[in-house]
Amino acid sequence: MAQMLDERTREPAADEAVRAVIAGLASHFGDRLATGRAIREQHANTVTWLANEAPDAVVFAESAEDVQIVVRACAKAGVPVIAFGTGSSLEGQVNAPLGGISIDLSRMNRVLSVHPEDLDCVVEPGVTRKQLNDHLRDAGLFFPIDPGADASLGGMASTRASGTNAVRYGTMKDNVIALTAVLANGEIITTARRARKSAAGYDLTRLFVGAEGTLGIITSLTLKLSGIPEAISAGVCAFPTIRAACDAVILTIQSGLPVARIELLDEVQVKACNAYSKLNLAEQPTLFVEFHGTEASVHEQAERFGEIARDFGGGEFAWATRPEDRSKLWQARHDAYWACLPLKPGAKALATDVCVPLSRLADCVDETKRDIEEMGMIAPIVGHVGDGNFHTVTLVDMNDAQDVAKAKSFISRMIHRALAMGGTATGEHGVGQGKRNYMEAEHGTATLDAMRAIKAALDPQGIMNPGKILP
Amino acid sequence: MAQMLDERTREPAADEAVRAVIAGLASHFGDRLATGRAIREQHANTVTWLANEAPDAVVFAESAEDVQIVVRACAKAGVPVIAFGTGSSLEGQVNAPLGGISIDLSRMNRVLSVHPEDLDCVVEPGVTRKQLNDHLRDAGLFFPIDPGADASLGGMASTRASGTNAVRYGTMKDNVIALTAVLANGEIITTARRARKSAAGYDLTRLFVGAEGTLGIITSLTLKLSGIPEAISAGVCAFPTIRAACDAVILTIQSGLPVARIELLDEVQVKACNAYSKLNLAEQPTLFVEFHGTEASVHEQAERFGEIARDFGGGEFAWATRPEDRSKLWQARHDAYWACLPLKPGAKALATDVCVPLSRLADCVDETKRDIEEMGMIAPIVGHVGDGNFHTVTLVDMNDAQDVAKAKSFISRMIHRALAMGGTATGEHGVGQGKRNYMEAEHGTATLDAMRAIKAALDPQGIMNPGKILP
Repeated sequence: MAQMLDERTREPAADEAVRAVIAGLASHFGDRLATGRAIREQHANTVTWLANEAPDAVVFAESAEDVQIVVRACAKAGVPVIAFGTGSSLEGQVNAPLGGISIDLSRMNRVLSVHPEDLDCVVEPGVTRKQLNDHLRDAGLFFPIDPGADASLGGMASTRASGTNAVRYGTMKDNVIALTAVLANGEIITTARRARKSAAGYDLTRLFVGAEGTLGIITSLTLKLSGIPEAISAGVCAFPTIRAACDAVILTIQSGLPVARIELLDEVQVKACNAYSKLNLAEQPTLFVEFHGTEASVHEQAERFGEIARDFGGGEFAWATRPEDRSKLWQARHDAYWACLPLKPGAKALATDVCVPLSRLADCVDETKRDIEEMGMIAPIVGHVGDGNFHTVTLVDMNDAQDVAKAKSFISRMIHRALAMGGTATGEHGVGQGKRNYMEAEHGTATLDAMRAIKAALDPQGIMNPGKILP
Repeated sequence: MAQMLDERTREPAADEAVRAVIAGLASHFGDRLATGRAIREQHANTVTWLANEAPDAVVFAESAEDVQIVVRACAKAGVPVIAFGTGSSLEGQVNAPLGGISIDLSRMNRVLSVHPEDLDCVVEPGVTRKQLNDHLRDAGLFFPIDPGADASLGGMASTRASGTNAVRYGTMKDNVIALTAVLANGEIITTARRARKSAAGYDLTRLFVGAEGTLGIITSLTLKLSGIPEAISAGVCAFPTIRAACDAVILTIQSGLPVARIELLDEVQVKACNAYSKLNLAEQPTLFVEFHGTEASVHEQAERFGEIARDFGGGEFAWATRPEDRSKLWQARHDAYWACLPLKPGAKALATDVCVPLSRLADCVDETKRDIEEMGMIAPIVGHVGDGNFHTVTLVDMNDAQDVAKAKSFISRMIHRALAMGGTATGEHGVGQGKRNYMEAEHGTATLDAMRAIKAALDPQGIMNPGKILP
């Protein structure tokens, strides 16, 4: 155990406390508590340059009561608790900088109920988005939020995830009707009823969505579902410049065209996807679009979008009419991150996202792209541009200090550029550790103090996922 | 001043404090501070059986700095502060049960900026919904949230208002992008950036939407706007029974038909509207519907809805194709409350709303209607039924103790009926004083304690609109 704690500098008293908590939990959980190094490091997964900071132990919870037992034991001893879903968060959300107990929720993966007549369902937090959609398919329903990874729904709620469908269906904020959570005091709260709307008190649902486990641990979610559209039409269209593609997006949204997906890939990303996903696209800035509706309305939407695209020099539209072609297209989009890796063998791919008001999208993407070129970096751009949200995937040789420094300064400039345009430091990846230091610039002191007051009110000891969100 | 404070029982020390605060504020605000009885009572407007509980003084704020000055003076002396918009809230939200200073925000009524390219605008809290829509019309934009009254947007945010368009456009929760608010400590916070989505920390925007001024006072709002649809089609359709009408609504929503408005009026309400708004509708349970889209899609939606209506015995559809006919129809719907008053001359009309999962709508409306009949009351039913939300407008002779008791027990049963069906005590009117005593049944102790902790964290003295929301 001593070796384990060597990894960090911590007060000896705290280490004593951790040892006692682990011993107590081990006697209750048996082989559902693990302290092996490999398993602990897996639970501090980070897809950034943030160091892996492993928890002291991992408990595999199977019920809300399990979560309560861990939280109560940790609260009593002042030991940190970190919730873990699938570990696909991008800003170090599951790291344990102060050690503590990671609660792995992946075994809480039951779909508890589906109410097709109410277009909702209740799930445990470890259910993944693909698992849920497989479960729902026969009922003609789907859950639209689709981050790149097959993330857990508890994790998606906690990071306020969105994805390619957000422009039409909203983000997790809009698709969680209610949730239950274990608070730092060990109590379970239910944030809302199953009714579609309510004006009955503070919106605790939205407070927990995006709180990254710093206010409590989600143990179930009531989710809004959507009917699988009668007709779906998807296609790709290449543009002469990235600004032309962005301008086409802006006009599409302004026109009120109810596009379901509208995704930008710059020419570098298209080239990467061609290689990785065996596509055959022109290597130009490209939009992937999709329309949902009835046969007639989808046809009309596609026609209108085609007119807008042509106005901005968009090339011929390549439609993916068969379901398998559509799947291939969107799988390629979801695999964009992995497609980037071969562009610089041995490099780490650092995905960063910002979001700006739509009117500034073309400026922000354009300036960011210029910055990438000036720095001589490889950093494909890909984005959920209908919301003004885009990502860079910066390829960095982590053994080259200069390369790391260059990437860090580039990402910092990108964030400050977005903030200066009225945007946010993160549209959908969350804050975690990676964006903490931008929160002061984004929110200002008074607002951060209000967030801190709420945090202190619900977690006075600061045991819930410490070191995240608040600087 | 002594006379003024006689109206309540309060500690003499507190009265001293109030007198000192008023004297201090009077020297700053001059004739923008009022203590006359009539004006104070106007600022404690209540459309329920709740007694008028006037504040000790009213300050007409013209800027966020004015609000800060009042809040700081009140915080120093431990005196309550109540925000006031237009006074059209329905559950006693602007009452001053512990006295204090009412801040009238109606003079903060500037539209600060409109960004048509981003489909958003920034307004002061005293701008009313009709004022904003007049301002936006030439830009081809509108703000969809439409409670019955021409309420202020600050008040609408504070009560989490919705209305007839919510089924398509969402509620205030979905249409406030960001807001600024003065906290109890006198600081101004900005809850979010103007970007369409963000994962940058706790969702303070949604926390303040629906908080009824108990956490702070909203001083500006960034609102999401929608394009005025290219084509609008509205109509009415009568049904043989209220259950048949509800079942038609349920199937419409389940089918994914993107109806913009779908409103139920029972036969009592139709009769009242016929008389008040000079309509000529069959006096049967009736749906008012509206479709938004392109010419073709509106036509298709209307056709599909017609098929569903016919399946449930719906009569011939009467279309309001001309804009003036549509306006007349929706004005009649918005005037439903006023139309009820002549049904029982001299009576007070108590509007109560609940919201249930859609699958329980027909049951809940049906049982409520039977209850009304069994009690021999006059209480028309009208509702935003696409969300599972409906209202009763109970007509009560406030001088008849038996009538009052009957109405109170009816409303209590209606709320508990909704709660038992997985619904909420209020879909859109808020909690105020009127629904406070149902919060324990709705949320449970642990959840209410979490709300209390947040309230105490942001308002440790409890000066912000005391006596509301939390029991």
